Amino acid sequence: MSQDVAQQESKGPVMRDLEPMFAPQAIAVIGASRRPGTVGQAVLQNLIYGGYTGVVYPVNPKAKSLSALRCVPSLAAIDDKVDLAVIVTPANVIADLIEEGADLGIRNFLVISAGFKEIGGEGVERERQLKKIADARGLSIIGPNCLGIINTAEEVRLNATFATHMPRQGQLGLISQSGALCTALLDYAKGRGIGFSRFVSFGNKVDVSEIDLLFALARDVNTKVILMYVEDLSAGLPFIDACHEITHGDRPKPILVIKTGRTTEGAAAAASHTGSLAGSDEVFDAIFEQAGVIRVESVGELFDCAEAFIDPILPEGRGTAIVTNAGGPGIMATDACIRYGLKIPRFQEYTLKSLRFQMPPTASVKNPVDVIGDAKHDRYRAALDAVTADENVHQVVVIVTPQMMTDVEQIAHVIAEIKSYCNKPLIGCLMGLVDVFPAVEILREHGVPCFSFPESAMRALAAKARFAEWVRRPISAYRKFEADHNAVQELLQRELSAGRTRLVELPALELLRHYGFPTAPFALAKSADEAAAVSKTMGFPVVMKISGPQILHKTDVGGVKLNLRTEEEVREAYTQMIQSVRGRLGAEIEIWGVLMQKMLEPGKEIILGMTRDPKFGPLLMFGLGGIYTEALRDVSFRLAPVRENVATEMLKSIRSHRLLEGVRGEPPSDLPAIAECQMRLSQLVNEHPRIQELDINPLIVYARGKGAVVADARIILKE
Amino acid sequence: MSQDVAQQESKGPVMRDLEPMFAPQAIAVIGASRRPGTVGQAVLQNLIYGGYTGVVYPVNPKAKSLSALRCVPSLAAIDDKVDLAVIVTPANVIADLIEEGADLGIRNFLVISAGFKEIGGEGVERERQLKKIADARGLSIIGPNCLGIINTAEEVRLNATFATHMPRQGQLGLISQSGALCTALLDYAKGRGIGFSRFVSFGNKVDVSEIDLLFALARDVNTKVILMYVEDLSAGLPFIDACHEITHGDRPKPILVIKTGRTTEGAAAAASHTGSLAGSDEVFDAIFEQAGVIRVESVGELFDCAEAFIDPILPEGRGTAIVTNAGGPGIMATDACIRYGLKIPRFQEYTLKSLRFQMPPTASVKNPVDVIGDAKHDRYRAALDAVTADENVHQVVVIVTPQMMTDVEQIAHVIAEIKSYCNKPLIGCLMGLVDVFPAVEILREHGVPCFSFPESAMRALAAKARFAEWVRRPISAYRKFEADHNAVQELLQRELSAGRTRLVELPALELLRHYGFPTAPFALAKSADEAAAVSKTMGFPVVMKISGPQILHKTDVGGVKLNLRTEEEVREAYTQMIQSVRGRLGAEIEIWGVLMQKMLEPGKEIILGMTRDPKFGPLLMFGLGGIYTEALRDVSFRLAPVRENVATEMLKSIRSHRLLEGVRGEPPSDLPAIAECQMRLSQLVNEHPRIQELDINPLIVYARGKGAVVADARIILKE
Repeated sequence: MSQDVAQQESKGPVMRDLEPMFAPQAIAVIGASRRPGTVGQAVLQNLIYGGYTGVVYPVNPKAKSLSALRCVPSLAAIDDKVDLAVIVTPANVIADLIEEGADLGIRNFLVISAGFKEIGGEGVERERQLKKIADARGLSIIGPNCLGIINTAEEVRLNATFATHMPRQGQLGLISQSGALCTALLDYAKGRGIGFSRFVSFGNKVDVSEIDLLFALARDVNTKVILMYVEDLSAGLPFIDACHEITHGDRPKPILVIKTGRTTEGAAAAASHTGSLAGSDEVFDAIFEQAGVIRVESVGELFDCAEAFIDPILPEGRGTAIVTNAGGPGIMATDACIRYGLKIPRFQEYTLKSLRFQMPPTASVKNPVDVIGDAKHDRYRAALDAVTADENVHQVVVIVTPQMMTDVEQIAHVIAEIKSYCNKPLIGCLMGLVDVFPAVEILREHGVPCFSFPESAMRALAAKARFAEWVRRPISAYRKFEADHNAVQELLQRELSAGRTRLVELPALELLRHYGFPTAPFALAKSADEAAAVSKTMGFPVVMKISGPQILHKTDVGGVKLNLRTEEEVREAYTQMIQSVRGRLGAEIEIWGVLMQKMLEPGKEIILGMTRDPKFGPLLMFGLGGIYTEALRDVSFRLAPVRENVATEMLKSIRSHRLLEGVRGEPPSDLPAIAECQMRLSQLVNEHPRIQELDINPLIVYARGKGAVVADARIILKE
Repeated sequence: MSQDVAQQESKGPVMRDLEPMFAPQAIAVIGASRRPGTVGQAVLQNLIYGGYTGVVYPVNPKAKSLSALRCVPSLAAIDDKVDLAVIVTPANVIADLIEEGADLGIRNFLVISAGFKEIGGEGVERERQLKKIADARGLSIIGPNCLGIINTAEEVRLNATFATHMPRQGQLGLISQSGALCTALLDYAKGRGIGFSRFVSFGNKVDVSEIDLLFALARDVNTKVILMYVEDLSAGLPFIDACHEITHGDRPKPILVIKTGRTTEGAAAAASHTGSLAGSDEVFDAIFEQAGVIRVESVGELFDCAEAFIDPILPEGRGTAIVTNAGGPGIMATDACIRYGLKIPRFQEYTLKSLRFQMPPTASVKNPVDVIGDAKHDRYRAALDAVTADENVHQVVVIVTPQMMTDVEQIAHVIAEIKSYCNKPLIGCLMGLVDVFPAVEILREHGVPCFSFPESAMRALAAKARFAEWVRRPISAYRKFEADHNAVQELLQRELSAGRTRLVELPALELLRHYGFPTAPFALAKSADEAAAVSKTMGFPVVMKISGPQILHKTDVGGVKLNLRTEEEVREAYTQMIQSVRGRLGAEIEIWGVLMQKMLEPGKEIILGMTRDPKFGPLLMFGLGGIYTEALRDVSFRLAPVRENVATEMLKSIRSHRLLEGVRGEPPSDLPAIAECQMRLSQLVNEHPRIQELDINPLIVYARGKGAVVADARIILKE
């Protein structure tokens, strides 16, 4: 039990050196072939025709040469240091080949061949063997069952894949779990003129994971934006930590991800609210949110966002100026701007004056600026100079519709020129495809992001604005609260020794009290007299609830009484309650006594919860009580441990968060008090891995400054 | 006042004959020019080079010929029947030209020139004059300030625009309020290889409206799908009726719309809940919903949906089969399928058997079917034959990633072949852009919709599935309830004569009772004794509320008492209440007495409302009470009058509608009772245009079969 605590604390991420994979000086290709249509032939030809700058050794005992390269009969026959072995042989011989390579001092292997986990049966065993070899001998293996690796850097020019294209050089690094998708992405990128720095298909990830590859792209100077396609993640916190590191520092790199496979398998079996609400996709949303990763829904959106991020300048805010030569597209852009959470600020007075002076009288000088249909590049220049200088403007979108008088290419040059000295994001929206193509190429050459229509432009800019906020936000610490760790250990031992894995209210409240959660005064009374005495000390009114290890549904058996105001009432209630419960559940039911609680003032009901994801560890939940959680499923999740700002953001990510900010004349709720409970919960579940699921339901929250109180809770333990 | 009632009743739509505009045999071009870069030159050249099959008469008194055509000095000099006059002269002479043309018997004018409403000032007056002439002389005028008209039909080939492209022939008809957007759309369509049947930019729509043009496209045999870009609509109910007609019958045509300009101007000033919640965009959403028009958010989505609709076969349901040669894209497609509301059905047993028999053992025969990476066209054929025959499958998506063994073009031929005899929608998703291009062309030639990625494919298919449901749904009638029309007229007269435009609870409840709304028994008591007597007749418990024409906030002045259970309590409450109200509001405040109501059983609180949109007429609102409406703005709108199914659908279009279906063990609410109230409200506000705004808040709704009761209401009248 004790090993878990340390394991689940967040440590700095671990990097491994994959540079020999991406920039090898010598490569052995095992399974190279001359037979057309084979992977072995495709890989060898891609290496040669891709312009690889190192040496390739085809390994083939049956051929003297392949594609004009002299073959070697075996790895042992190579009289050179091999940095990377690319394997395209049948699956059943691969383990032996890797052992052989490792004996010869080769550390890096790219296994393109399929025939492993994905085919089930013997494939699973084969893959297990590969993993064992990698771990035992400290090797790096990418794959198996993947398309391969591409590095377009001029000094390397590595195409160790069986794809039909070598992509053009660019600033996008891509890692993908699906090889087939990669072929489609390469083809699509070619059609759109998009280039890549590095491109990796990592397949079954027997050894090298998406986290290792993220670091490899992060350290690559040619990669400005990281794109990912994943179907799962290897780990939770390490992924979050890696992304944290990559998206911060001097040169934060944005990470865009497509994650597919939205299933809710496994959720049905969970015993708590939290457990039943945490479908697998909610977990991924929480992880990406915490990691600062931008999740997109389609390939089009992926490349649109990448286009905006190619320009490294991040906006200082959400204020967006639009300059257009047509009204309709200006309205479309404004709509999209608002839809994606950007803002259309008013210009400062001097900007308006400058525009009024320089634009024709029929132009609209307010944001969006309509330079009208006959505008040529000089008018665009005047308008752009004015609006880029405005302090309310954080980014600028230039819309050009190719009308009769429009000198689109000249305008593109003007945009590129202004971009060269403007320190705000400036993007072109050249509407259409064919007529505007030469102008699009001009913008591309000058590194100006360029879109065909305002909708996609605004969606991408909005993602960039959110990323800018992420990068600049203050990073708060993990708070560590004083807590009685041993008392909780003892309590858990006691319950488990008694064979109880479900903690009812009394032990749950005791446990939470040990960790400093605010609980209303409570005590167990074992007789009517004791109940009366306790209530007098506590102060009226009080609530009484039957307490016993097996009694889960207290109300159903007459085991709850509210709002008792005198000792007399309490005494009477005690006797009645014991009778009623024994009447319903039988005389032999174990009763500890009656739980006496000070009756709470009414407030807003909140649920805090935790369920342990089998792969990612403790997952915290937050939601409003009652129908909001149960019927509307309006809840948010984060992996524990949570930093202070994460605990706070979590409260704002439910749809109905406005209800906590004071509506209908109510005062706002005490959000800091909720966040503190969330952090205490985070610490508790991290320090006590025996706690499998936990619901605080409800936490009663009062107005700002008045705190929150745990009213009821239940806890499920691992046996 | 009485004219409004008839006017607002829904009548059959009016069609006008615009065929001479779209297929003229002779055209006069007034303002034709030889000067390069002028609209006059561009239009003339487009007519000539576009291959127009009729006769063009350039009208120009200063030139003998233009582009090899003999000019005429004036319209009067043309010795032929001119079907259409295209005007590209300066704006100030256009009214006179139209008068002259009308004198000569020309009925149809296309005014491309700008310089009207859009420039303000004298332009507004010029436009008004055009409207006057059109109305007085029964002419049809398209424009002013537009790009013009295109008709690609072989027997016409009309390009009366100054666009730089004549689009290729196709099945899409497009009408656009923005000319500049049209140029961009044409350019984009050219790049994507998309063709059009008719293409109209209608500019300021001084005369011919989007509704007239909808009918023109509906009657055109070459147009299979109608695309619209609008910034506003000319009318509400006539638009709904027109779309209804076009989207029904033997050959329903789908209508796709981009509507921009989401403002909330004017909403702030509204006095009722309903008024303040009805921003202009909510009105358009309601109109499109009622019209069966598919609203899209971007140009990309517009053409994606159009692509799916080119195939006229509508699916019988939402069950979607996916056949793929790669796992990742299959998962993406499944995700998108679910996201857009489609379903992934299980196959029938015989389908599974057939697939198991024909596919290799590593293939996945469940939906989505993975034919795996080495699949060639024959395996695709076997899989497609099996799944298209499955009764659970209503549409099929074929995903092809261009892998090494993939014979993409052969597969495209197989898809086209199966499409030719399959009576279900079948679409291709050929992933990429460049390598797959020849195969895409094969699918296009055979009329098979084709997409680059699963996301856009599924979004478009989902739109089509919704359209199929729209086309096939039973159309219910407008219900007409018995109501005491005269009593309401008298009540309204009485209140207005007394100078009151805000009806407080008592007259509002009376008014609603005249229209058969369920109200709890109520009566006005003018003394303590009367109150006691009334309550005895009514039955206890009762609610008492102060009633007077100026008393709006009853609770604040001690004017509400709940749950009174004896005559004594009632008597005492009466005296106290009168004292309290006079104490707070002054002795001179007018008090009618105390409104006595039978206390209602608790139920779900609902708001029904109506606000009159200045352009579109009465707009009905529906929402849950309290925070759902006020803080969460979770409401739905429809234009009155509403048919029975519209009233029902309206209840289902709020986000939190599940709360009415019975959650946490509650019985479902009485939706038919709410819908009936909505229809009564529809009838009431249609028959009494003096009612400007109305809130029934709350309507208390009980379990299915137990009805609903109006608890409170207020009404605002037009002076």
